[in-house]
Amino acid sequence: MTDGPPESSPLAPGAYVLGVDSGGSGLRVALGRADAEGPLFTTVCAEPVRTGAGGIDAAHLLEQLLPAAAELLGRAARDDADAMDNAPATVVALAVGAAGMATLGERLRAELPGALARALGVRRLALAADAVTAYAGAVGQRPGAVVAGGTGMIALGTDLTEWHRADGWGHLLGDSGSGAWIGRAGLEAAMRAHDGRRGGSPALLARLHAVFGPAEGLPGLLYPRPDRPAVLASFAPEVAACAGADEVAADILRKAATHIAEAAAAVCPGAGSEAGHRTGHGTGETYEVALTGGLFRMGEPLLGPLREELARLVPQARTTTGTGDPLTGALRIARALAVDGLRLPHHPTMLFVETGDGPSAEVGARVRTGEPEPGGVPPEGPGKGPANRATDADTSPVGHSSDISG
Amino acid sequence: MTDGPPESSPLAPGAYVLGVDSGGSGLRVALGRADAEGPLFTTVCAEPVRTGAGGIDAAHLLEQLLPAAAELLGRAARDDADAMDNAPATVVALAVGAAGMATLGERLRAELPGALARALGVRRLALAADAVTAYAGAVGQRPGAVVAGGTGMIALGTDLTEWHRADGWGHLLGDSGSGAWIGRAGLEAAMRAHDGRRGGSPALLARLHAVFGPAEGLPGLLYPRPDRPAVLASFAPEVAACAGADEVAADILRKAATHIAEAAAAVCPGAGSEAGHRTGHGTGETYEVALTGGLFRMGEPLLGPLREELARLVPQARTTTGTGDPLTGALRIARALAVDGLRLPHHPTMLFVETGDGPSAEVGARVRTGEPEPGGVPPEGPGKGPANRATDADTSPVGHSSDISG
Repeated sequence: MTDGPPESSPLAPGAYVLGVDSGGSGLRVALGRADAEGPLFTTVCAEPVRTGAGGIDAAHLLEQLLPAAAELLGRAARDDADAMDNAPATVVALAVGAAGMATLGERLRAELPGALARALGVRRLALAADAVTAYAGAVGQRPGAVVAGGTGMIALGTDLTEWHRADGWGHLLGDSGSGAWIGRAGLEAAMRAHDGRRGGSPALLARLHAVFGPAEGLPGLLYPRPDRPAVLASFAPEVAACAGADEVAADILRKAATHIAEAAAAVCPGAGSEAGHRTGHGTGETYEVALTGGLFRMGEPLLGPLREELARLVPQARTTTGTGDPLTGALRIARALAVDGLRLPHHPTMLFVETGDGPSAEVGARVRTGEPEPGGVPPEGPGKGPANRATDADTSPVGHSSDISG
Repeated sequence: MTDGPPESSPLAPGAYVLGVDSGGSGLRVALGRADAEGPLFTTVCAEPVRTGAGGIDAAHLLEQLLPAAAELLGRAARDDADAMDNAPATVVALAVGAAGMATLGERLRAELPGALARALGVRRLALAADAVTAYAGAVGQRPGAVVAGGTGMIALGTDLTEWHRADGWGHLLGDSGSGAWIGRAGLEAAMRAHDGRRGGSPALLARLHAVFGPAEGLPGLLYPRPDRPAVLASFAPEVAACAGADEVAADILRKAATHIAEAAAAVCPGAGSEAGHRTGHGTGETYEVALTGGLFRMGEPLLGPLREELARLVPQARTTTGTGDPLTGALRIARALAVDGLRLPHHPTMLFVETGDGPSAEVGARVRTGEPEPGGVPPEGPGKGPANRATDADTSPVGHSSDISG
């Protein structure tokens, strides 16, 4: 994979990589050796990085990241000293995955490379959407697809040439099958039972009463809240709990499973770039569809029908759950960057890469969608044109606010 | 209908009634004769009545209502003078219908009767939820049901003993089949086409592009808006426009029609108070199901399947559209009050009545729901217990903000 020796020596003793996961519940940082899998040490900064009109606040991220990096390097240096290995500890590559990177990452992309070069001497940097670090954590650097599900839901796939995303449009435009979707469908079925409308579930109404109090009071509790999707998602486990004995609840989970499988099928390698829905019967090769995030901790009431739907829509895929996480993914991307071995497609906002020779995001900078390309327009450079079509979209599966692990 | 002569003489020359409709687009006021159908004059105050932590602002309503009433009485007096009929113009009864009355009407119920007695000398007053004035406007004082549809959707029915409501729970918990529901389903189908997911509609995606610009930018346009339901509903006419040639759009409208018919069926007289869904085969009598509000101006793409569904679910009902409106309904309630002829059920928050002898809302104060009654608990007086179960719910079909005519 390397075209020549890198400008520093990533495989020397004392060469480290940093992975960062910035989400709604704070900043997590992992330090690993450049030449070995897995993190050595991790630390958590509980304060979420601020976002403002200018996007994700690069200075606020650095305020937390630099002390965390220093602490982790100090722990590594003490360990190295114990091992009688006194090479100086240096960070040779760093990858940051962030919720909202696609829409809100402009300041990070502009300010972080220079600041990190000055502060840590690191010149190899990747800034990734959280769905990309989820992919790297769950699937690694192979072709495949990840479904990241929590309050929201997004599917991301690649054949290592381009990224393809589906859904992740937030609780009003999609996130079909997500925690918010399941919870909302459950509450709607409860209100139907309350009203005496067809399709109601007395079991779900009883759970609504237990969780929220009288049904008539629920609108007054829900609508004033700024975190309505999270409130809706909080009811999803109640739907799962009822699914064994309640046909309405079971049907909600079957429908959610279908929506999730449809999103996965749309992004699988070989699904093709022609318009219309994809069935995934493209390549004949098998690959992994990884299910990651809190949504899939609902267990068999969701996973059972989901495995069935995936077997129907993408028979060539192996489904896995619970492998890796976005922080592991960030560390993997950093390590690949350190050894010139990054195989995941660069992209101006999905996976922005800086190696000290200027940004190289134009390499493979494409996100495929189901829409026909405007005829004859060639892919353009970073920041404009069809090659950049997904860059205005937030890839965070919770819409616009928090991370995928909910 | 009268038990004896009223304390004033509603049928005297110069006896007038006032109807008021207070909604998201302002205050509308109609003046009519106490002894004849229909309004003589109407006027509009464009400023919506303020609501705050204490509920609908009674003082702000009076600030607008009293000059409007004076103006209308002045016009009536001039007309009477032209007709050589010089009896003094007096308001003998007044009815106010307001969006949010059920949840936010407490101050109105406490403050308005005294203030109006002092200012206008009127002692007969009704304060009604906007769904009740919609009912009175569309159905009158007969048993039946109304479906008020705009951005939101609520169904209200009565057998003249009790009120029964269905849906109207806002865009996240219900309003199934409403403008916001149809628009949201249409936008979701557009995003599916964008992603290459199954169930997408290229035709709706083309309309999304035309109305909102690039699909990826829609989340950023929609989620920061405080009026998200209205933004969603603004896309409903696009769904209707596509339904002739696009099967996905046609299916959305068929599903909306089913939801609306289910809500109507749940509230129809004779639908019964037992738990579970109602089919409306209760009484064998025919009655009116009135469809009112902007939703039904979408025309045949919605009305065609809706008539079919209503014929299936409530075969004994006659469906009507476009009859009356909430202002007409308020005027009708006021006129009925003037002649002791109010047959619609009183209710502490749905239809609060004050006749100068203290509130009489305890008469027939029930809203039936599909939930089983707590065993053995008798109906209680106004303000507490199962008899009041619907009073915490906002009957506004748009959830919590505007009126039903959208």
